[in-house]
Amino acid sequence: MPELRHNVLTREWVIIASERAKRPHEFVRERTQKEERPSYESRCPFCPGNEALTPPATLVLPNDGAWKVRVTPNKFAALSYEGDRRRGFADIRRTVTGVGIHEVIIETPDHSKTTALLEDRQVETILDTYLNRFNYASSDPRVEQVTIFKNHGEAAGTSLEHPHSQIIGAPVITSQLRDRLINALKHFDEYGECIFCHVLKVELQEQTRIVMETEHFVTFVQFAALTPFSMLIMPRRHMACFSEIRDAEAADLARILRRTLAKLYHGLKNPDFNYTIRTAPREVCGVKYFHWYVSIIPRLTRVAGFELGSGMFINTSLPEADADFLRQASTEA
Amino acid sequence: MPELRHNVLTREWVIIASERAKRPHEFVRERTQKEERPSYESRCPFCPGNEALTPPATLVLPNDGAWKVRVTPNKFAALSYEGDRRRGFADIRRTVTGVGIHEVIIETPDHSKTTALLEDRQVETILDTYLNRFNYASSDPRVEQVTIFKNHGEAAGTSLEHPHSQIIGAPVITSQLRDRLINALKHFDEYGECIFCHVLKVELQEQTRIVMETEHFVTFVQFAALTPFSMLIMPRRHMACFSEIRDAEAADLARILRRTLAKLYHGLKNPDFNYTIRTAPREVCGVKYFHWYVSIIPRLTRVAGFELGSGMFINTSLPEADADFLRQASTEA
Repeated sequence: MPELRHNVLTREWVIIASERAKRPHEFVRERTQKEERPSYESRCPFCPGNEALTPPATLVLPNDGAWKVRVTPNKFAALSYEGDRRRGFADIRRTVTGVGIHEVIIETPDHSKTTALLEDRQVETILDTYLNRFNYASSDPRVEQVTIFKNHGEAAGTSLEHPHSQIIGAPVITSQLRDRLINALKHFDEYGECIFCHVLKVELQEQTRIVMETEHFVTFVQFAALTPFSMLIMPRRHMACFSEIRDAEAADLARILRRTLAKLYHGLKNPDFNYTIRTAPREVCGVKYFHWYVSIIPRLTRVAGFELGSGMFINTSLPEADADFLRQASTEA
Repeated sequence: MPELRHNVLTREWVIIASERAKRPHEFVRERTQKEERPSYESRCPFCPGNEALTPPATLVLPNDGAWKVRVTPNKFAALSYEGDRRRGFADIRRTVTGVGIHEVIIETPDHSKTTALLEDRQVETILDTYLNRFNYASSDPRVEQVTIFKNHGEAAGTSLEHPHSQIIGAPVITSQLRDRLINALKHFDEYGECIFCHVLKVELQEQTRIVMETEHFVTFVQFAALTPFSMLIMPRRHMACFSEIRDAEAADLARILRRTLAKLYHGLKNPDFNYTIRTAPREVCGVKYFHWYVSIIPRLTRVAGFELGSGMFINTSLPEADADFLRQASTEA
């Protein structure tokens, strides 16, 4: 019989549809054409030598020599860098001027190298860049919420194939984030414990959905995962905000992020995916009730009318089977 | 400059990205192949003569002669018809047995006829069927929330091309619906008015986002529409629950639903879309604070990492421009 499971972090219900469930290997992508890409593409605006095709860089690492990671304002920014944040109120209408930060983080000079294929040191440089730009965007007095995210592949909404991620600093807090902050706060008041620490503790006890562990982080499939093979990478140490990460933790996150994505890459044959860093805003750094983490969402299925109409997902894969499959998947070619 | 708009019904913010906005005609679908389908497909389980390929019908209309609309349990149901609803509680885990209703509503015997191309009378029969099955599912003591929805086209998650919609009666209320009920209740307490009646009043005053009007219904693009060309069809008369609809209103809804979908079909060249009926559960029929409606969501863009990570959408089309385009689109071939 199918089972409904409740996601304690988001209060969402998901139908784990065991009757129509697929086996993990049924999600392995069939490649109809050779997918190897050149390491340099002359018309790609993110390839070395084409820097003039993007707005001037806001950060380049390392400071000297050839760049390894390069940050530029998004040429087609969703928000405007210039202008004041102004609120509008008219009857039931609420508006805010569309000001904020929208940057592109070019993750490597190599056009062909997705995260799974990079060296750990390069992923560390990407994470150092995330931290730098997160703090930069958070410092803008117009910005309330900073989202770091990556779109890999067409189903994940990418438009340029050169490996990159993006950061958006928006002038409002969304109801999604506010609701999760309030939910976490209520849990803390009731249990005297961070809800995320609580979830991590239970997952480590049960072990069945753990994909991998390092000194500072744990990758696991959630008990009530909404979609097949979606995973969280959660820091063991309680931290509300991404900006609280320490150097040794960032280096460790680089290792586990690279290996987790490599398991997807080799296990499911390079599926399209998104990842995002879910964090409290920097202004509530240090609070006991929230906990940042990385959310990885492979785009293997489509959201249909039931999900849109009800807010409930149907997951056609068993979280425990997904975790088992990924535990066995290789982290190297 | 882009503008952030607040959706008062869902409390979601959306970035109306005027800088990267497309013109409405850029969303017109390019058809790479001829899409005419046969009106009969010998292996289609929903075509007349193949009734044995589905579970036995639970409703057939009309009562005698050839069927016009046929309802059967979904052969690959997400929920089980048999079994008790039982809750599980263990530490932070909450589960419910996956029991409930999952039916398929075959909308026409004609394999080729999407809603836009049907006769109004046929759409009326479909709506009569929705009402019958909504009441049936709502009467199941295990069911808390009933969702009626349609998936049209691959991007909307359909697996069978014969025109059909579905109904799922789930054993829980989702946080999406509960949050909207509470939000509407708070609005009523503050304004002394149904939030949906309030929105409809403002839309009718402003007129710029109205697509079409009939005696009993209004089709409009929301002020803070999350995605291009998404529309609501809202009853003018205050009704919390779909089951409160009167015969004359159902006939009128058939006309405006068919014409609204025809505008999409002819204007954007048969885009993939979902629609769903958003309604209060039948147990709160008659309340002053909620209002049912039809939500139509063309699937013209992809949800990417920013939307998943922040809960905020970027709409690359101007709601007022979408409404203007659709007002001018034809309702007939």
